[in-house]
Order: sequence, then C-alpha cells, then structure tokens
Amino acid sequence: MAAVTYELLKTDNRTKARRGRVHTPHGSIETPVFMPVGTAATVKAMRPEEVKEMGAQIILSNTYHLYLRPGHEIVREAGGLHKFMNWDRAILTDSGGFQVFSLGDLRKITEEGVEFRSHIDGSKHMLSPEKSIEVQNALGSDIMMAFDECAPYPADRNYVKNSLERTTRWLARCKEAHKNTDNQSLFGIMQGGMYQDLRYQSAMEIVDLDLPGYAIGGLSVGEPKELMYSVLDYCVDYLPANKPRYLMGVGSPDCLFEGVERGIDMFDCVLPTRIARNGTAMTSRGRVVIKNAAHERDFTALDPECDCYTCKNYSKAYLRHLFKSNEILSSMLLTNHNLHFLVKLMGNIRKAIEEDRFLEYKKEFYDKYGKF
Amino acid sequence: MAAVTYELLKTDNRTKARRGRVHTPHGSIETPVFMPVGTAATVKAMRPEEVKEMGAQIILSNTYHLYLRPGHEIVREAGGLHKFMNWDRAILTDSGGFQVFSLGDLRKITEEGVEFRSHIDGSKHMLSPEKSIEVQNALGSDIMMAFDECAPYPADRNYVKNSLERTTRWLARCKEAHKNTDNQSLFGIMQGGMYQDLRYQSAMEIVDLDLPGYAIGGLSVGEPKELMYSVLDYCVDYLPANKPRYLMGVGSPDCLFEGVERGIDMFDCVLPTRIARNGTAMTSRGRVVIKNAAHERDFTALDPECDCYTCKNYSKAYLRHLFKSNEILSSMLLTNHNLHFLVKLMGNIRKAIEEDRFLEYKKEFYDKYGKF
Repeated sequence: MAAVTYELLKTDNRTKARRGRVHTPHGSIETPVFMPVGTAATVKAMRPEEVKEMGAQIILSNTYHLYLRPGHEIVREAGGLHKFMNWDRAILTDSGGFQVFSLGDLRKITEEGVEFRSHIDGSKHMLSPEKSIEVQNALGSDIMMAFDECAPYPADRNYVKNSLERTTRWLARCKEAHKNTDNQSLFGIMQGGMYQDLRYQSAMEIVDLDLPGYAIGGLSVGEPKELMYSVLDYCVDYLPANKPRYLMGVGSPDCLFEGVERGIDMFDCVLPTRIARNGTAMTSRGRVVIKNAAHERDFTALDPECDCYTCKNYSKAYLRHLFKSNEILSSMLLTNHNLHFLVKLMGNIRKAIEEDRFLEYKKEFYDKYGKF
Repeated sequence: MAAVTYELLKTDNRTKARRGRVHTPHGSIETPVFMPVGTAATVKAMRPEEVKEMGAQIILSNTYHLYLRPGHEIVREAGGLHKFMNWDRAILTDSGGFQVFSLGDLRKITEEGVEFRSHIDGSKHMLSPEKSIEVQNALGSDIMMAFDECAPYPADRNYVKNSLERTTRWLARCKEAHKNTDNQSLFGIMQGGMYQDLRYQSAMEIVDLDLPGYAIGGLSVGEPKELMYSVLDYCVDYLPANKPRYLMGVGSPDCLFEGVERGIDMFDCVLPTRIARNGTAMTSRGRVVIKNAAHERDFTALDPECDCYTCKNYSKAYLRHLFKSNEILSSMLLTNHNLHFLVKLMGNIRKAIEEDRFLEYKKEFYDKYGKF
C-alpha cells in the first residue's frame, strides 16, 4: 500500500466540494486543507509549535531551496527534514521544477532535465527527475511532487503540448527513481495550460501511472481568475475520485472557495505569509493594510471575529507601531494571524460541507469579506 | 510609600554581592537581575510570553524611541505600555537622555534640556527633565529613570563636574515633575565619570533626594573593563544599602559577575538580543558564531548545558542554515537562547549568593566559559 492514502468522507449535495482525509506516515490530514509554506525548512517568522497550535496539519517545503542550502545531504544526515526543522506532522515537498523554470535566463531545459545557475552564488547545477527524487528522498517528505514543466501563461498550443508530454515522460522517470515508497508517496502533476484537450491528454497519461495523488499544475500563473476557474471545472473531472487533488500555488480566500467548490482537496500558497511580512492582514472583513494612518489610534483587534494569539492580545495601533518600526514581532504576529485565518477558514469549509451548507457558508463569508 | 521598594535578603559572606527583592506594582523582582531590553515596546524577535516563560521579571523600554514612535500619547490612550505591548510584569523606562546625547551633531544641550532632531524623520524636538517625566508618566512604567547627562569617555574633569551638577539639578526637576508617585517610582542616576571625588559628589547630591533607587550611569561607555570595575568598587559604597543599585548598559557575563560582586542589583543591555540577530550565541562554553563552517554538520545543541526551547529542539546545523538563509526564525531562536542564558545565569548567581558560594560559582563559570 502507498505511504499516503485518501479516504473520501462525504461529497457536498450541490457542488463537487468534498470532505476527505489524507493518511500519511506523519498523521492524517482533514481535507480540504490549506498547507502553509515553509520554503527553506521554516514557515517564516513562526515557531513550528505555533503552526501546530493553530491546527495546521501539513506544511510544504522546497526542494530547490533545500538542495542549494543547506544541501539535501545535510538534511539527510540530520535525520530528515521533519527532525531537522522540528516538525512532526506531514510535509509535502515540491520538486523544484517551478523554481528552476522561474529562473529565466539562468536555466536551460533539455529532455534530461534543467541546467541552472543558483540564485545564491551563481554556481551551475542540474535538476532532473532523478535528481529531484533523490533530493526529496533525502528530505524524507511524506508527499513528494513530480518534477514537471510548468508552462507559462500565455503559451501556444504546441509549446504546451510538448511540455505536458515531457512532463509525462519525466513523471515515469520520477516514479522509477523513487526509492522509498514505504514512507513517501509521489504525486503526479497535470499540465496542459488552458487547453481542455491537452488537460485531458495529460490527465489520462499521468492517471495511467496509478499514483497516490495528483496535482493540477500550470494554474495561477498569471491568467485571469475566471479562466482558472473554468479550466478547473473540467480538470477535476479527469482525475480519479479516490485520490487527493491538489491545486498548486493557490491561497487567496476566494480561490480557496472556488477550488473547493470544484472538488480540490489541497492548496498551498506563500500569499498569507508573504503579505504578512509586508504588513497586510487577511480578515473576515477583507484585507487590512496595517500601516494605514486610520489604524494609528485603533485599539481594537485586527479581526473582530478572530480568536488567534495576535487578535486576543494586540491592537491594530500596536501592530501598526511594530510594522512602522520594522520590528520582527510585526512579521511574527501578522504571519500568525494570516495562517490562523486560512487554517480556520478551511476548518469552517470542512464543517459546512459536512452539514450540507457549503454554498451558504461561502455566501456568508463573501458578504462580510467584501470585494476580492 | 514609594511604588517601588527594596528588600535586602542576604549579603554574601566574602564579597559585596547581595540577594534582594524589588517590589513593584507589577510584581516582585528577585535580585541581582538582568533586564532584557525592549527598546520600541517589544523585546526584538520575542513574544512577551516567551520572555516570561524563561523567567524574566522585568524588561526595559525606551522613552526616546516611544516618544518619537508611536508617540507617548498613543501609548497612554492604549492604556499604558504594559497593556499596549502585552507585558504584565514590571517595566523600567530609561529617560531618553542617553539616546539624545548619542545623536551627536543632531542635538544641542542647554540648561533647559536637549534640543534634537529625530533620527527617523529629522523633525525638531526638545527633551527636558519635565518632558522625559511627562512621557514616562504616560507610558506608566514601574521604574522611571531620571533625565541625566551621560559624559563621554574620556572627558576632562571640568566637563564631567559641570555635567554631573547639571544632572543633579535635572534630577530635582524630574522629581518635581513626577505626577504619579503611587504607581511609578523615579530612580536617580549617579554620574562623575572616572573621577572618584566627582562620583562621591554626585552620590551625595542625589542620595539627598531620597529616591526609591539609584543607578550608576556613565560606565560601559568605552573605558577599559578594569577601569569600570575599579570605579564600581567605590561607587557602590556611596549609595544607600536599603535601595536597589542599577548598573546601566551592562550585560556580558563577565561584567555581570564583576558587577554583582561589587554590590550591583540590576543590569540591562542590548547585547544578548543584538548579537543574537547577528548570529552569535552566548553559551556555557563561550560565544558561538553560528555561521562558522564548523557548524555545518554539527547536529548537537548550541549549548550542551542549556534547557531552553532552542537548545531542546534545534541543532547548530539547523541554526546555521536559518542564519545563512536570513530567516526570521534565526533571530527568534538565538534571541530566545541568549536571553534564557543570561536570565538563568542570574538565577544561578542568586542561588550561589544564598548558599555562600558566589566566588566558587564564578570560578566554575569562568573555567568553562573561557576567555572573555
């Protein structure tokens, strides 16, 4: 049996939203779930216990970053990523594919893999399906992602077709290279850009490999949200119902609702942690830009509906002061709030699905949150 | 009765070291004590609960910084500094004197006070004894420091004499301006540079005002440590035994031992928090510079004798990785360790005094710590 399995608990009565559970060697994950991102073996500005306390069940970490620094062999010698970073719940690692493709002029794609220069010191490296899996095996993540090529948006049909077919060939090589199937599971990634027939082709090819889970890649890459939603509408139908479905790189509240409604189980995004460090909070009343003068004498909490550590103990006036003073505590408190907000939101969504009121909950949320 | 009182519990049998207790409206403080610095209403990179958990009983905050940002009126409206920053134990605020004198060309000293330009936006301000007390009354700190002039080192006798006499006149004005004696206590500051007769003159003048506590200022300003110790030797004798004695701006382990040995009760310094952010840890085996290549594959704790959160959960290899990756968690974990180290050190010193083995403990510590 695969290290990671999916259990479908309930499907919404009116949408494709579903309530499930992903079992991993480091605990079970209630889905739909939002996964906080810990790129460099740390969820930025957070102690891992704080991430646990808010209810996060799985975090994401990054093969490209950890391969370059500190190096995957060091993480292996440390006893794996869980031990290295003091996180005993599940970890998903992405393959590094997205990061090396993002390097632009610093990389060259061949059938073998991607040759690139480090963004840290300019040194030359090669990331291939085999290398990505070797690194992820060393890290010991519960869920490993296939090394894929994420086509940009827009991209012409021919480019996207070649790219998805290479992604399939690379996926077979990833599966072949994977040496630790008892403790780690490999997820495939569907590509195909915004072309329905190519999405179908990609799905058929990767589903054929019978992996424990599948991601939808190549979305949230600059296309309009409405286009992403319409692509999602059919993508999910091409994936098996008995495997978890993961929409990569998505984390704004509206995209989470729309993704869940279309049958997505897993999400990740740097958005909540990144905007926190830039002084922006996600709240039940929409986004709050903490540096605004309006908050100078506002001694109320960031979010009147939130029960997180930040909202229980600090005022907007204090948070504004910290942000304007470049204090580290500003990043700590806003990150804590934003992650808590999304983790709690997903908990509410799960409860709503269980109670057959997902669409009602979505409307309630939007009514308060306002325009996205 | 003064808001802050001192209780002498025991004097060491061979040195001037003493075990005492300072009572404040926000709890009692076991002395000798090290006070972590939270300049801008936050101990940098720490949640206040973490500072409490390690046993810190009082923190220091800064009049100059809070006057400029967010402004003391905002802190007053927030319900005072304790509430604003979520810290329910004691707070000591310095007067802002040291900071405005440090501004160099940006300030002008007159009998009235110090005219200066903000380091943030260049705006013009005046800090005087009355203004400093007004700000500290608004902040609501338990212990307020007098607005003094800290002479530089070296400085000629005449300069130092004029400066200490002005400090005395300013102290009388501070005492006069203080409007909240039930809840806040004003400490005087002895000046006099490295001149014994001037230290004596200063002490006599300020002790005459019968304040609840006294600080020794104008040390640790660049003079050799041996000179500081020899000045301390006589300074303490000029201060009353029934009041707490506070040595300002001192926080390296050797200076703490030497200060305690000479009868000092209270210390503060940015050293542990500042060097933490620069990647240096204080440990029982001396300082550890975490970025050093020697730690790349060192999977042991920072300090084998430490039971802090950082040492219990993370390796030097991980801490090195975080520091080299510019991760905020690096500052969080190293700050936690360094503060814990000094707070625990002071606890050990208190215990040693109680058990009449202060000098033995000092020797044990130095033997392991190595050269300072």
